[in-house]
Parts: sequence; C-alpha cells; structure tokens
Amino acid sequence: TIYVVTPTYARPVQKAELVRLSQTLLHVRALHWVVVEDAPAPTALVGGLLAASGVPFTHLHAPTPPEIRRRPGDPPWLRPRGVEQRNRALQWLRDMRPPGEAAVVYFADDDNTYSLRLFEEMRSTRGVSVWPVGLVGGLRFERPLVAGGRVVGFHTAWKPERPFPLDMAGFAVALPLLRARPAARFDPAAERGYLESSLLGGLVTPAQLEPKADNCTQVLVWHTRTEKPKLRQEEQLQRQGRGSDPRIEV
Amino acid sequence: TIYVVTPTYARPVQKAELVRLSQTLLHVRALHWVVVEDAPAPTALVGGLLAASGVPFTHLHAPTPPEIRRRPGDPPWLRPRGVEQRNRALQWLRDMRPPGEAAVVYFADDDNTYSLRLFEEMRSTRGVSVWPVGLVGGLRFERPLVAGGRVVGFHTAWKPERPFPLDMAGFAVALPLLRARPAARFDPAAERGYLESSLLGGLVTPAQLEPKADNCTQVLVWHTRTEKPKLRQEEQLQRQGRGSDPRIEV
Ligand SMILES: O=c1ccn([C@@H]2O[C@H](COP(=O)(O)OP(=O)(O)O)[C@@H](O)[C@H]2O)c(=O)[nH]1
Ligand SMILES: O=c1ccn([C@@H]2O[C@H](COP(=O)(O)OP(=O)(O)O)[C@@H](O)[C@H]2O)c(=O)[nH]1
Ligand SMILES: [Mn+2]
Ligand SMILES: [Mn+2]
Repeated sequence: TIYVVTPTYARPVQKAELVRLSQTLLHVRALHWVVVEDAPAPTALVGGLLAASGVPFTHLHAPTPPEIRRRPGDPPWLRPRGVEQRNRALQWLRDMRPPGEAAVVYFADDDNTYSLRLFEEMRSTRGVSVWPVGLVGGLRFERPLVAGGRVVGFHTAWKPERPFPLDMAGFAVALPLLRARPAARFDPAAERGYLESSLLGGLVTPAQLEPKADNCTQVLVWHTRTEKPKLRQEEQLQRQGRGSDPRIEV
Repeated sequence: TIYVVTPTYARPVQKAELVRLSQTLLHVRALHWVVVEDAPAPTALVGGLLAASGVPFTHLHAPTPPEIRRRPGDPPWLRPRGVEQRNRALQWLRDMRPPGEAAVVYFADDDNTYSLRLFEEMRSTRGVSVWPVGLVGGLRFERPLVAGGRVVGFHTAWKPERPFPLDMAGFAVALPLLRARPAARFDPAAERGYLESSLLGGLVTPAQLEPKADNCTQVLVWHTRTEKPKLRQEEQLQRQGRGSDPRIEV
C-alpha cells in the first residue's frame, strides 16, 4: 500500500484542488489517501468529496496552533505549512496500522501535480527513496545527483548546505522505517527550508537515499501552485445582500 | 463521443497542466481529446505526453497571429487567448469527422478543474447546454438562473448586458448543430467578455439553452489558474553555465 498524506486547509480553491488530486489518485492501485484537515474539526466539504471520490481514504484533522499560524499578509514562506497535519498522519500510521505492514508513505500537498508513474517508482522504497521535483526552489527542477546508483549530491540553488535539500514532494519513506524510528517527525520549529531535513535526519543519512526515476533524471512531480482567486465582485454583491447563493458549495 | 477541445501554449507549467488534465479525461468513457497548440508546429513535449496519456487524442496546432498575440507585461485580459486554436478545432470537427456523427463539443482550457460528473451531464446535449462555473468573474460562481426548466437569466457581476454572460467552461455544443451553422465561430476581434457570445450567438438564443447540473445548482467545474513559477535562481545559474540540465524535460 502507498499511504498518501495530504494536509489541506479551507480556502476558495480547496474543493477544486482536492477534486483534481482525487482524480489522479483514483488511477493508482493499492493506495490509501490520508487527508488531514488544518481545522478544529472535520468539515462536510472535505468529508463529502472524499466519500464521492472513489479513493480509499482516512479523514483526519489537526489544527495549526494559533501561535504558529500565518497571519493574512504574511509572506507564504514565513511559517511552515501542513506540519501539524503531517505529524498527525505519522501518529495515525504508527498507532493504527497493523505492525509489520509493508507500506510506503508519501507526503503529497494538495496543489502539486503528480504523474501516475511516480507512484509506481516509489512502491519499491525500502528506506527513503528520492527523485527530482519540477518548478521548485526557483529552478526548472531540483534533483539528487547520482553516481554508481548512489546519491552523491544535490542540484539545488537554495541553501545547499541543508542536510537534505529536498522538497516535500521529492521523497517517500517505508512505513517499517517510520516504526523503527518512533521519534522521527517534522519539527514545527524548523528553520525555513529545514522541515524535510527535520524528518529525514531522524531516519537515514544522505548516502542511504534510494534514487528512483531513472537515477533521478525524470521529472514526475511538479511543485505547481494555484492562484488565489480574486473575489472582489462577490464582496460587493454580498454587501448589497445579493452574493452568490451560499447553499451552493464551490 | 465528447470532443474536448484544449488550446495550450508553451510555458514552464504546460506539461504539468496537461498531465493532470489528461488524468481527469482518462476516467471518462467515449471521450476524444483535441489538443491544439498555440505554436507554428506541433511540439515533441505535447506529442509525447499525449501519446503516453492513454486518452484518445488528435494533436493539432494553430499559432496565434503576431498582431493579436499578447506581449510580455500586457495584462492577461488584454487579448482573448486560445481563439485561433478553438477555431482550428471547429474546422477539424466539421471537416474531418463523419457527417451525422452524434457528438458533443466542450472547450476545456488546460488550467481549469473539471469534476468527472460534468462530462456525464454534458453527454445529453441536444443544442447548447449550460451549467455553473466556480471561481470566475470575481464571484464564488457564475451560473444561469433557471425557472420551469428554462434559462431565464444569469447570475454574473461583470458586463451582465452580454447576450451570453457565460465562461468558456460553462457550456457544451452538439456537433450536429455546429455543422448546421457552418459560419459559427469564435471572433478573434470580439470585445473582452464577448468571445463566448460570438460563437453562441450564431447557434442559439438564450431561451434555447439546456440547463444541466440539477438546473444549474451544482458547481462541477472551477476556473482555477496556476501561478507562474518564479525561476530567478535558474536564470542566475544559467548565466554561470550551471543551469538545470536542459536535456531533462519539465
Ligand atoms: O495554513 C495552511 C497552509 C497550507 N496547508 C497545506 O500544507 C500544504 C503545503 O502548503 P502550500 O501548498 O501552500 O505550500 P507551498 O506551495 O508554498 O510549498 C498544502 O497541502 C496545504 O493545503 C495547511 O494545511 N495549512
Ligand atoms: O497565448 C496563449 C494564452 C492562452 N492559451 C490557452 O488558452 C486557454 C485560456 O488561457 P488562460 O487559461 O490563460 O485564460 P484565463 O485563465 O485568463 O481565462 C488555455 O487553455 C491556454 O493554454 C493559448 O493557447 N495561447
Ligand atoms: Mn504548494
Ligand atoms: Mn485559465
């Protein structure tokens, strides 16, 4: 089984993002979607679309604590996003899945683009597997550099001194390894860019990473981001009591 | 058959957009994807992903003439986008498909989000069918207003005087109707917001529109837009001759 862990939060494009991601995941066999809402309770919007999606799923929630939540106007990189949610999923995986289950865990944000081949590549992960990520870090792609079947460095332009200069979308972890290292988790206080390293540093050394996607020469996932829609007319109409029918879910 | 017509142009997110759209379309039976590149010739990037997608497709191209092409820095709404390409597809549909074929034509931009139910709703189109579109026109959604099974108006905040105040994603057309009105096409000179009306005005009157999606009360398509990725580090590295390997497709 591949456990795909997706943190998600309420905003105008949330349903659209999760609908199109569900269509991707619906093509993949032996996959279980762990959706963790950044919310004090599960919502009907997310629950409804999961139930309609056809994808096997578990619906969790974990609110980001107010002291680390981003405030409107803060730059997007100020606080790590999705950290509490991914740690909630780690807890569920360790506590609720049968011990000894052979499975792979992948952290898939709700706005990225995933090729179907990516999931077949990660299925054989024994410890931590890695591959390129497109459109990230100001580059066409970031990727691990491979020689003799081993990771020997990283193509990245941003903080190359990080122990694991990898995007969240660029690795998967075997569930038995997560169980063998019960303290490994994402550090909510990690410095910008060090979130992935905070988990991976508790699991492996860089030399142990398993390169996938033809020795990390294929881009099979893209760090796409969706524009925040402008809803100025909506606000105007709502002030006049003529807003779009609130009973219609978007 | 549903003919899904998608104009597309080269940019960093193009492959990602088409990959995730192909995953949506791959779920829909009796569908044929007509992809029209805004390019002087078909590209290997688009041809390759179409061939790998598993979706039945036709690969066309039609460059936007230089005199109407947007220039860098122009606001996105200055020129209609995808017009030559959609008209190229209309020509192909009229000239190359068997006369009398019962089929439906839908214009699906490469960046929107489509629920699978949308395609089942449009399958029964006899003339022109319509439904709501989410996150468009500054509103949560725009939609036709329906009374007694007929379209009697439109919920829209922007140029409500347009004959068909509908987004491109909000309607489908029966192929026999397109054949019966051989002059109907998108007008490249249409004023901003009047592109959809330029085609539909040649096909039907507003009263003839066929409401779908529970009398236009369900949002099954979202006008999402993808952020343009910043590639500043890439440009810096390229100036130093150390850019991301150009042989790796993104
Ligand atoms: O307050 C937030 C912001 C983001 N996220 C989720 O965390 C992941 C990463 O966020 P985002 O895509 O905004 O990050 P970026 O694109 O900047 O890497 C996504 O799945 C979001 O839905 C969240 O749960 N709460
Ligand atoms: O120069 C261009 C700009 C856009 N498009 C295509 O036309 C459609 C509409 O463009 P876009 O999504 O940018 O429009 P908007 O989101 O502003 O409605 C999309 O399928 C694009 O790929 C194109 O073929 N050439
Ligand atoms: Mn993201
Ligand atoms: Mn668009």
